[in-house]
Amino acid sequence: MLSPHATPSRGGSGSDEIAADQDRFRSRLTDTIEQFLADQRSVLGAISSESLPLIESIATLTSGGKRMRALLCYWGWRAAGGVQDASAPVTAGTALEFFQAAALIHDDVIDRSDTRRGRPSVHREFSARHTDAGWHLDAERFGVSAAILAGDLCLAFSEELFTASCADTAGTTARGIFNRMRTEVMAGQYLDLLEEAVGPDQSPAVAEERALNILRFKSAKYSMERPLMLGGALAGADADLLAAYSAFALPLGEAFQLRDDVLGVFGDPEVTGKPAGDDLREGKRTFLIARTLGSGTAASSARINAMLGDTGLDAEAVALLRSLIVESGALARTEELIEGKSAEAFEALTRLPADGVSREALHRLAEAAVIRTA
Amino acid sequence: MLSPHATPSRGGSGSDEIAADQDRFRSRLTDTIEQFLADQRSVLGAISSESLPLIESIATLTSGGKRMRALLCYWGWRAAGGVQDASAPVTAGTALEFFQAAALIHDDVIDRSDTRRGRPSVHREFSARHTDAGWHLDAERFGVSAAILAGDLCLAFSEELFTASCADTAGTTARGIFNRMRTEVMAGQYLDLLEEAVGPDQSPAVAEERALNILRFKSAKYSMERPLMLGGALAGADADLLAAYSAFALPLGEAFQLRDDVLGVFGDPEVTGKPAGDDLREGKRTFLIARTLGSGTAASSARINAMLGDTGLDAEAVALLRSLIVESGALARTEELIEGKSAEAFEALTRLPADGVSREALHRLAEAAVIRTA
Repeated sequence: MLSPHATPSRGGSGSDEIAADQDRFRSRLTDTIEQFLADQRSVLGAISSESLPLIESIATLTSGGKRMRALLCYWGWRAAGGVQDASAPVTAGTALEFFQAAALIHDDVIDRSDTRRGRPSVHREFSARHTDAGWHLDAERFGVSAAILAGDLCLAFSEELFTASCADTAGTTARGIFNRMRTEVMAGQYLDLLEEAVGPDQSPAVAEERALNILRFKSAKYSMERPLMLGGALAGADADLLAAYSAFALPLGEAFQLRDDVLGVFGDPEVTGKPAGDDLREGKRTFLIARTLGSGTAASSARINAMLGDTGLDAEAVALLRSLIVESGALARTEELIEGKSAEAFEALTRLPADGVSREALHRLAEAAVIRTA
Repeated sequence: MLSPHATPSRGGSGSDEIAADQDRFRSRLTDTIEQFLADQRSVLGAISSESLPLIESIATLTSGGKRMRALLCYWGWRAAGGVQDASAPVTAGTALEFFQAAALIHDDVIDRSDTRRGRPSVHREFSARHTDAGWHLDAERFGVSAAILAGDLCLAFSEELFTASCADTAGTTARGIFNRMRTEVMAGQYLDLLEEAVGPDQSPAVAEERALNILRFKSAKYSMERPLMLGGALAGADADLLAAYSAFALPLGEAFQLRDDVLGVFGDPEVTGKPAGDDLREGKRTFLIARTLGSGTAASSARINAMLGDTGLDAEAVALLRSLIVESGALARTEELIEGKSAEAFEALTRLPADGVSREALHRLAEAAVIRTA
């Protein structure tokens, strides 16, 4: 499962300036997204108006969210000396938003998730379109196939926008970061998938290590470290500054994903927009689960392994798994890890050579990422 | 019977020169693919050696094939005055090969095709890996999920290579062509999918028109027109020359896909590497099918509609459908259309302002595209 967006909220000095700056950035980002989608509607409309639902599914996904990755890109740009109203971080931020949307579309197919942000996921939306229209052949298969194509199209859009953001020479480092980010996410997602299949056979210590490696690549780098570095690279940041960004954003991203893992099991469906305990039904082999298996008895481990990945798990079974996770001490250990990674990130932030406004903005984004309920 | 223009095996001067030139290009293409994959093995290996099967599935698909799109790109480059041993058409050609591989991986998932070029398709390969290792949860679902990710990765690789091919200013037109090509393919594939679902409800005349629109976008432009234009744009071709390329390659691409549709029903499995009548089982609503439905009785149409898309169709049912297609005159009409489109392409080729060697090379590629058995 990929991570939802986070909401920044922190008062204090410089608050209005930062909030206003971010609002301006978000508004330019939204305008760019809407303009791009309007252009693409013309392109697809010229092929056939019947292909437009592909755009609409992408439009829905890119209209929401708190723009966390794009904002990190923006502050990475600003902290490296980039000016306030430049277009490069807006276009690159838009590319990150489209990449995230593409990943979510395919991720929901892979996880067979029916909902995303409280709405039907893209494959469910296309299945419903098929059923409502009374079309022929299999509705579910149509939905999955259409979602694969919608995700591919969204991935291509992301690339189209990214290229537009770095036509100049500074683009070389930025391009390398963007390329690497995509590869990491796809490899990380594959390892995540593999872990569902091979997890039960791993020793607990190995499983914990593997879970941490997966979250690093499928989420931490992509959600935090790479977007920040991307903005920096676009503004011409040197290797030292990019390393300082990484020292802050990688542990932050790890804490962010660990928080996500906790929410995937203990989150309130009203707030997360996902059914309670969805990660358990999907059989996700997170650190939380690896730790639980390592801390319990052989009998409880066998019980957990038998339940994980059972798409029919009811509320009672979810409650039982939750209590096993709590009793094993795995939840407390995960919270401890989130605290440790967060502390590491905040400490690295104090050493980041950046202006006060950028640092304060990054501080707020960091808090929102690790202290959240959705 | 094909157009006299399309008679294969023209001997004469320049023959060996072209073959040697193409062999050199193909060999540089293969070297670039292998070097790129070696670099990516390092990237993925650093994440986890367990993610390497993603690369291997891509390596298998990009090692074979006729390199038709890459060769069109090369001759588009040459015909626009590009020099023989430049790297831009090699890198762009490699990007086209990776894009093609990505499309095939996802296409096989969408069509539930078990084989590709006589080998297991990528999703079947990953399912087999799961089964052989005795992993947990569902093997088929694992295979489909892994193939979605392998296709995404391959799409990202294609982009990475494409960007490397046009760092200079001529890249702007080329980039536009590449962007447009991807969008066209994905929209065209969606329309193809949609047609399987809505096709039975269309009137025959409308269905024929829709089938021709789909084949134009999902295949003709992407397989022929865009690769040729891409090579030309990289060499600085102006709008007039690109339009002349299009006048040749678009009808050629249409003839190519119509030939493919015929082979999808009547092809020899030994030669195509696909089971006999696979397109019928997949329920493809090609021009061939639309024409058959329009030419037969209401009773035969109902019978055909009931059989199309039935994944369990046996040899007898395939033979029955074939005979209905032949008896309706739809096969003859499709061959006629192939002949007409081919003639249009060869006629446009005579008007193409290009050197004799490039023109001869394009002539041969065109012949190979429309006169083939696989």
